[in-house]
Amino acid sequence: MTTSTEYEPLTLETIVPRLKLIEPVTSILGSDTSKWKAAEIGDGNLNLVFILKGDKGSLIVKQALPYVRLVGDSWPLPLTRAFFEYNSLVRQNSRAPNSVPKVFFFDKVQALIVMEFLHPHKILRGKLIAGEPVTGISEVLGLFCARTLFRGSDLSMDTSDKKNDVALFLGNSALCDITESLVFTDPYFDAKMNHNTPGLEKIIGQIRGDINLKVKVQDALMKFSSNTETLCHGDLHSGSVMCTTDDTKIIDPEFGFYGPMGFDIGMLISNFLMAYISQPAHRSSKNLVKFQDWILEIIIKFYEVFTNEFTNLWKTERNGILFPKSLFEDQGQSSEKALEALLKNIWFDALTISGIEIHRRILSLAHNADFEDIKDEIIRSRLEAKALMMGKELILNREAINDTNALSIIARRFNQGSFL
Amino acid sequence: MTTSTEYEPLTLETIVPRLKLIEPVTSILGSDTSKWKAAEIGDGNLNLVFILKGDKGSLIVKQALPYVRLVGDSWPLPLTRAFFEYNSLVRQNSRAPNSVPKVFFFDKVQALIVMEFLHPHKILRGKLIAGEPVTGISEVLGLFCARTLFRGSDLSMDTSDKKNDVALFLGNSALCDITESLVFTDPYFDAKMNHNTPGLEKIIGQIRGDINLKVKVQDALMKFSSNTETLCHGDLHSGSVMCTTDDTKIIDPEFGFYGPMGFDIGMLISNFLMAYISQPAHRSSKNLVKFQDWILEIIIKFYEVFTNEFTNLWKTERNGILFPKSLFEDQGQSSEKALEALLKNIWFDALTISGIEIHRRILSLAHNADFEDIKDEIIRSRLEAKALMMGKELILNREAINDTNALSIIARRFNQGSFL
Repeated sequence: MTTSTEYEPLTLETIVPRLKLIEPVTSILGSDTSKWKAAEIGDGNLNLVFILKGDKGSLIVKQALPYVRLVGDSWPLPLTRAFFEYNSLVRQNSRAPNSVPKVFFFDKVQALIVMEFLHPHKILRGKLIAGEPVTGISEVLGLFCARTLFRGSDLSMDTSDKKNDVALFLGNSALCDITESLVFTDPYFDAKMNHNTPGLEKIIGQIRGDINLKVKVQDALMKFSSNTETLCHGDLHSGSVMCTTDDTKIIDPEFGFYGPMGFDIGMLISNFLMAYISQPAHRSSKNLVKFQDWILEIIIKFYEVFTNEFTNLWKTERNGILFPKSLFEDQGQSSEKALEALLKNIWFDALTISGIEIHRRILSLAHNADFEDIKDEIIRSRLEAKALMMGKELILNREAINDTNALSIIARRFNQGSFL
Repeated sequence: MTTSTEYEPLTLETIVPRLKLIEPVTSILGSDTSKWKAAEIGDGNLNLVFILKGDKGSLIVKQALPYVRLVGDSWPLPLTRAFFEYNSLVRQNSRAPNSVPKVFFFDKVQALIVMEFLHPHKILRGKLIAGEPVTGISEVLGLFCARTLFRGSDLSMDTSDKKNDVALFLGNSALCDITESLVFTDPYFDAKMNHNTPGLEKIIGQIRGDINLKVKVQDALMKFSSNTETLCHGDLHSGSVMCTTDDTKIIDPEFGFYGPMGFDIGMLISNFLMAYISQPAHRSSKNLVKFQDWILEIIIKFYEVFTNEFTNLWKTERNGILFPKSLFEDQGQSSEKALEALLKNIWFDALTISGIEIHRRILSLAHNADFEDIKDEIIRSRLEAKALMMGKELILNREAINDTNALSIIARRFNQGSFL
């Protein structure tokens, strides 16, 4: 690192010599580099990820590649995404302390972040498939969303600082472009990289044939591409959450961008909904109902924590230009109606995003293991059909879904339904 | 200019020696600089403006000052606004040709733009006060809005280019800050720089006491500060339009920023509405009705031209990421519903901005001559009361105002009404 100024991907052979002179690394791993051991664990779609262990401790070393790892060098992707991940982690850590891995070192040229090794944490998606509950997960996720969304917005920030930060993150356009295409657009036409389980063709026809649905989806895309309300994680699904039985951390914010407040919430909820709908393929009927109930409770509890903390911050940290106290409290008037209206907008945006995220995970390029791990295509397509139809409902009838209880009822209805 | 790299305001004494070596200037004015004559005409609130005449032609030289000219050096304002004005003019000229003055020279350090001298053009606001109609004004303004709003958005631009441009214009935060404070906030509380005609206190109390109104205003501020739909002029009132009897040009885009599509339209319409309401103080009853009718017709015709051209561009230039043809026309489906929904949102945003702009022009710092030139405070307050109440109606009941015909009926109702 210190001897090279040109980008070069790490390998198992070079990682120790290249990192051994970096102070934060040696102080955590121990200075006897002969004891350092590296292993590559990259199981994501985009990057190189190593665990580096020494006699005193261990670390994660994450390095961006100049292309999409999942696809290869035919799909170039700028190294700058590491810069945006680093900057997102720094802001998340200050806005929502203890919810993201600690960062120890960042090298912009090498597109490399050295960070805390979360152990014995596992990816939440795997735990949901395995039927392993996590204590306290709703609290961590609810507080994380409330604090990052509120504190990254004009409700809280100095507006000139916020504009500078929005301008900085607009540089992450290549990763926004992925979301704009793969999430908001590809599911709704016969795009090149799409793939789907056989048997879904009729439902896909229904979705693509629904003009009202597509208008609402494109409205949501317009918000995604032109609405800089707050710094979003940008990819907050169950693959970006790591848990033990009672600890939860949020990782991988390389898609960080200033966007609508409902974006992270909607993506997160939809991934719980997909976990819920896919459960019958992963669980014996004995444990099925209980674990499905637990997932729906997580959604309800998460959103309750989110609204409570958002309300708390509204009362205690509303120092930005929006809804200033001078217009409400200082005139002896309540700002409660403003908060209610804002929360309602966030909720409706989140429902739309939820529906879209479900569609893209079943129809577009990047599917998720909740469904993809189901070997039997008949079973998979039946469950995916429920999810697709539920997604359509969330987008088209969001005004009728007042809260997470109403959402739970809808989830149960589609879970019971049969659409193939 | 060419001999100095440090910012220095021009004076009548220095303007000729400082500009005489700049090629575009000499080629327009003529190279015999002994024949050059300068006059200061700055009547705006912010900048130095000179006319420079030579034996071959004439030019406008506009230079930003490091403070607000209207207030003095107690209110500093960055020179960079000239950079944003220049960049706005360049984009407006390419997106809506022939609607803005030609730019001949720009010096970033000197915060100076040399541009076309519009002659015999007069500021539209003065013509509206004097009762002088302008032929073709609706067409120019309607085409300007449609073309700049459409072509500066993700409906048309490459989204990565657009994000870069949004990032660039986020640097204009000082001028956005003025709008955020003076337009969206100050009218709704007892702000330091506010002033108003005596007699309006009761109505002001009604406006500031209306929580629903203030929630809607702050929603609009949230859109202003966090919605980067398109490059807006940012200050498109009748003081930023210059006309002869049959030519119209749009000037002064130093408030240029990426914001909601309804912003320019709303500000423009509200300035026509204020001109309309203020007419009884400027016109004998003989000519009053005719000229008031003409103003309302301008609004209707302007919006018709806007929607027609926006629709035309939707059909012919929709090459951006939003509402792509792949999701509609290429699947044999119409995108008309999407266009309708978008135009409806623009209209509702415009109505809200109209109401807010009316409020700030009567209650905040920068009033407009339509009312301010009325010497008799009793008459002025009566007319301002009508405008204030109409503004409230536009914000609170916008969903009931379907189009410009409905808006005209409302304008006529408040024109007839009496509120003091």
